[in-house]
Amino acid sequence: MTASKTSEGGSPLNIAAVIFPGFELLDVFGPLEMFGLLGERAKITMSASERFPVASAAGPKVLPDILISEVHPYDILLIPGGIGTRALVKNPGFMEALRLAAAQAKIVASVCTGSALLAKAGLLDGRQATSNKLVFKWVVSQGPQVLWQPKARWVVDEKFWTSSGIAAGIDMSLALIDHLIDTPTARDVANRAEYLWNPNPNDDPFALKA
Amino acid sequence: MTASKTSEGGSPLNIAAVIFPGFELLDVFGPLEMFGLLGERAKITMSASERFPVASAAGPKVLPDILISEVHPYDILLIPGGIGTRALVKNPGFMEALRLAAAQAKIVASVCTGSALLAKAGLLDGRQATSNKLVFKWVVSQGPQVLWQPKARWVVDEKFWTSSGIAAGIDMSLALIDHLIDTPTARDVANRAEYLWNPNPNDDPFALKA
Repeated sequence: MTASKTSEGGSPLNIAAVIFPGFELLDVFGPLEMFGLLGERAKITMSASERFPVASAAGPKVLPDILISEVHPYDILLIPGGIGTRALVKNPGFMEALRLAAAQAKIVASVCTGSALLAKAGLLDGRQATSNKLVFKWVVSQGPQVLWQPKARWVVDEKFWTSSGIAAGIDMSLALIDHLIDTPTARDVANRAEYLWNPNPNDDPFALKA
Repeated sequence: MTASKTSEGGSPLNIAAVIFPGFELLDVFGPLEMFGLLGERAKITMSASERFPVASAAGPKVLPDILISEVHPYDILLIPGGIGTRALVKNPGFMEALRLAAAQAKIVASVCTGSALLAKAGLLDGRQATSNKLVFKWVVSQGPQVLWQPKARWVVDEKFWTSSGIAAGIDMSLALIDHLIDTPTARDVANRAEYLWNPNPNDDPFALKA
């Protein structure tokens, strides 16, 4: 047990997911399924730039609970990817809101091209990070000072956790539960989701070929 | 190519997901991520009993597009599970709407305890089906005439596809893409999602021990 562990009797993990038009469904709901299976040990909040339903890349619309600008000291701030990131990297207002929210969070976790948003905001400069392998060049172009890893299911650099494409966010989220609570709880969540957890961040079946 | 295959140049697959209070997030958004990666080859509609945002079991709220009673001849009608199924099996109005919607759909696909809803509606009587393994007894009690399979990642019986718990819906959805389009497309979708597809319905790592 380290100081960062949350005991079963402690306060719940406060988790906020940032959603935006064109977010990728599984980037958000893969991780939130795993955290949701913690029951009363997790509290999930959906955060967006406006108080209107937000359409995902595939179409389904999600209603946010609060604005990104209503910053709270979340245990985990989850940043998904998706085609909508292409517009957001050119949106200085979103970038500033992201920097403020990330500064307050204990852990900032991205899935897929969510790391391009963190990179563009300057939050990953000098840090190791990864992203979706199929759009890796575009992601790298958003943060030339980032130490991008072409082979990693996910990467941890201090409080920044960045995962590879889409489904990799599920493996990273189970590792976050392992880190913040304990390994038996992470294994129990994976079993209840009937999900075969890959607990090794270096085992990346979709790594870029050299 | 069989008659059921949808060619790349044909009309898109029309997919409707039924959501209800207490639906399980990944039961819905695992499959919809896979279908969403088909781009213009799929059209996704969210269907519910009322036109208000629907809260999932983990909290996040989704805005439906149409009512379940607005029946269309969908290619796939997706029925998720979740804690909300416990109330729905006692709701005759929902059961009647489900029967009408299922009758019009070419394929009815359930994830996790979604098969308990289909069973309670009498749609699986005399058919083979499966469900979440951790609440199998409860599911079986909703349909004593169903030929329940304790070891299967998913089961196909004519137009009824039923998957095991939560993440199993992703494997079944890729198999549906394989069935309705072709194997290379299913493999491409899995790769783009960086998801290790289990394409074998008999390979069930979470099967009930005898």
